[in-house]
Amino acid sequence: MFMGIKSIHYFDNCATTKVDSEVMDIIADYATEKYFNPSARSSFSLEVANDIAYARSKIGKLLGAQDKELVFTSGGTEADNLAIFGSLRAKKGNIIASAIEHSAVYNTVQILAERGYEIRMANVFADGHIDVEDLLSKVDGETRLVCFMHISNETGAVNDVRTINSLVKQKNPKAVTFVDGVQAVGKIPVNLKYFGIDLYSFAGHKIHASKGIGCLYVKSGLHFASTVFGGGQERGIRSGTEFVGGIVGLAKAVELAHQNLQKNRDVFCAYKKVIREQLKQVTDWQENCTVEVSPAIMSLAFADIKAEVLLHMLEKYGIIVGTGSACSSKNKYSRLSKAIGLADKYAEGILRISFSRFNTLDEVDLLANKLADCVIELRRTMLGTR
Amino acid sequence: MFMGIKSIHYFDNCATTKVDSEVMDIIADYATEKYFNPSARSSFSLEVANDIAYARSKIGKLLGAQDKELVFTSGGTEADNLAIFGSLRAKKGNIIASAIEHSAVYNTVQILAERGYEIRMANVFADGHIDVEDLLSKVDGETRLVCFMHISNETGAVNDVRTINSLVKQKNPKAVTFVDGVQAVGKIPVNLKYFGIDLYSFAGHKIHASKGIGCLYVKSGLHFASTVFGGGQERGIRSGTEFVGGIVGLAKAVELAHQNLQKNRDVFCAYKKVIREQLKQVTDWQENCTVEVSPAIMSLAFADIKAEVLLHMLEKYGIIVGTGSACSSKNKYSRLSKAIGLADKYAEGILRISFSRFNTLDEVDLLANKLADCVIELRRTMLGTR
Repeated sequence: MFMGIKSIHYFDNCATTKVDSEVMDIIADYATEKYFNPSARSSFSLEVANDIAYARSKIGKLLGAQDKELVFTSGGTEADNLAIFGSLRAKKGNIIASAIEHSAVYNTVQILAERGYEIRMANVFADGHIDVEDLLSKVDGETRLVCFMHISNETGAVNDVRTINSLVKQKNPKAVTFVDGVQAVGKIPVNLKYFGIDLYSFAGHKIHASKGIGCLYVKSGLHFASTVFGGGQERGIRSGTEFVGGIVGLAKAVELAHQNLQKNRDVFCAYKKVIREQLKQVTDWQENCTVEVSPAIMSLAFADIKAEVLLHMLEKYGIIVGTGSACSSKNKYSRLSKAIGLADKYAEGILRISFSRFNTLDEVDLLANKLADCVIELRRTMLGTR
Repeated sequence: MFMGIKSIHYFDNCATTKVDSEVMDIIADYATEKYFNPSARSSFSLEVANDIAYARSKIGKLLGAQDKELVFTSGGTEADNLAIFGSLRAKKGNIIASAIEHSAVYNTVQILAERGYEIRMANVFADGHIDVEDLLSKVDGETRLVCFMHISNETGAVNDVRTINSLVKQKNPKAVTFVDGVQAVGKIPVNLKYFGIDLYSFAGHKIHASKGIGCLYVKSGLHFASTVFGGGQERGIRSGTEFVGGIVGLAKAVELAHQNLQKNRDVFCAYKKVIREQLKQVTDWQENCTVEVSPAIMSLAFADIKAEVLLHMLEKYGIIVGTGSACSSKNKYSRLSKAIGLADKYAEGILRISFSRFNTLDEVDLLANKLADCVIELRRTMLGTR
């Protein structure tokens, strides 16, 4: 029980997830039994270093990467920053990013603007998909880096990574491509070799692994420089004593997610149907993205509703949903509604429902019911106070 | 049981430590119950954000810092890197560091040499203490940053942070002072306000908190820039979803360490006496630092012995010791023996014993006995093979 509420129905799995019990056991094991520093000289340390190597290899096999292409970081944000700062060689040129990148990418490229790079923002369509034509029109011989999300954390739009990468490389083979895969790994199939991109980031805490662990894929052969210096861990790219339990737990989490990939897809699609069905009794709402969308994300917009009020109403029933990116909640206005050209009446009413394999159909029924009730109640109240 | 050995006697607590069971409970609680993203909008998230604030405040009170002066990082190495890169404003000038800084500081200032700064290495005495006169002689009007360790991770030498800081500031009030406190926090009293330094780093995994969590003290008013960009967490200095369990666990670990500070000091000093007593039967060894030394660290040097061989002999009894900094074990030669001017015969025979509150007198007896036996046996064997 937390905050006096007996039972939590958690539908904000894009913000973060509950750590899986199998992963938790691993974390505890490395914290209290196999706690040895992988860089120390004892055989126990060597054993732990081998466990990291095995975890790296396991993740590589599941995501289509070579072991040496994976660098463990403290999370998605650090991986995004490392990708951007580590891959830039030229002092000038232009950098392209989509308009609805996560703040870890968006704010980092803004910093590069201060450092003399030209930043070109690529448009997105109304459902959050990247306008590939617009993106490509911005690529030229001076393009150093092209950043785009695999799955929008806000609408769930899935971009065609392989095609976009190939089109970018056709225009400028030297442009480095970086994809933020934080919402994709463990949700949809990911094959990094097949995608052909140069850099790809993901985070443990979005897939039932620990907070404080993430990973960056750096394609073999890419000229890449470290940004953190020290004991030379992670092949010198990212020094610092490894969060071993976090790493081995991440490998387990990726494995578990992949075992459930197809099943989750079907189950989550069924969940979406339940919600859509129940919301038929409500007027004036839309689903922001319905095709080429992540099974795990359902982004809704309700006219003339403040999503934050709705969110707090649902909390009373132990139902937790999101209003957009958790990481941008410190910023007053979302870039999303502007970028996707959402009608004004919807702008404050964006609610994000995101599923995990721990959700049940009963919970989804409850969510769908209460959501419909709350929207109706909220509109009635607002009408009364006018 | 790990690697077929029933009972581990762990004396490499400078490399890393076992997570305390109370801390482990906290980590598990935030991973599986209070797993909410502190930046999300629900009241549950707000509660978790408050827990971080409370943890920050608790650490601040124990270490003499204001809440807003503490920035959580992924560990000591990241904190060291952030301190150095975040505080440098001028594009040129000189940077001073002691010759036996941890690689997270040493290698980072080497990078700055490539970027046009002049690096001045300050000498250390034979026991690892900084030669303050030499350090001060290197400070001038162009000095941007002075880095020195609070406690040497290799010899245990404790430097007088307050005095050194005050002398540096007398020569150049604008020089930023940065102290790596990774081996000091939780081992000896630390009062950051009293010290007067600008920056101070420490790591969770050295004091029975998790790997993957660290902290940087940034003195209020210091001009400081972020090096990681994103959602604006940690007051914009260090973006990225917080490792909440790591943070709250760190606060608990600092608290527990402080409750045991005086007691540990006495107990560890008694442990050192037991080892010294037992080593009386061995010839030709020295204790590298005996005055102004960390109670938790005992650095020994055995003539004509390869410490690594000794380390592996002790392993058979489940005894784990260190040979120096874990983080520099990837480098073939230690900077230490050269920096402290160790006689050649000792150069490869440096063994580091480091205690924690989980050690028992029985374990220390075993260590002392086996250490003496192994050194004698090793020398006998070497004599036989000549």
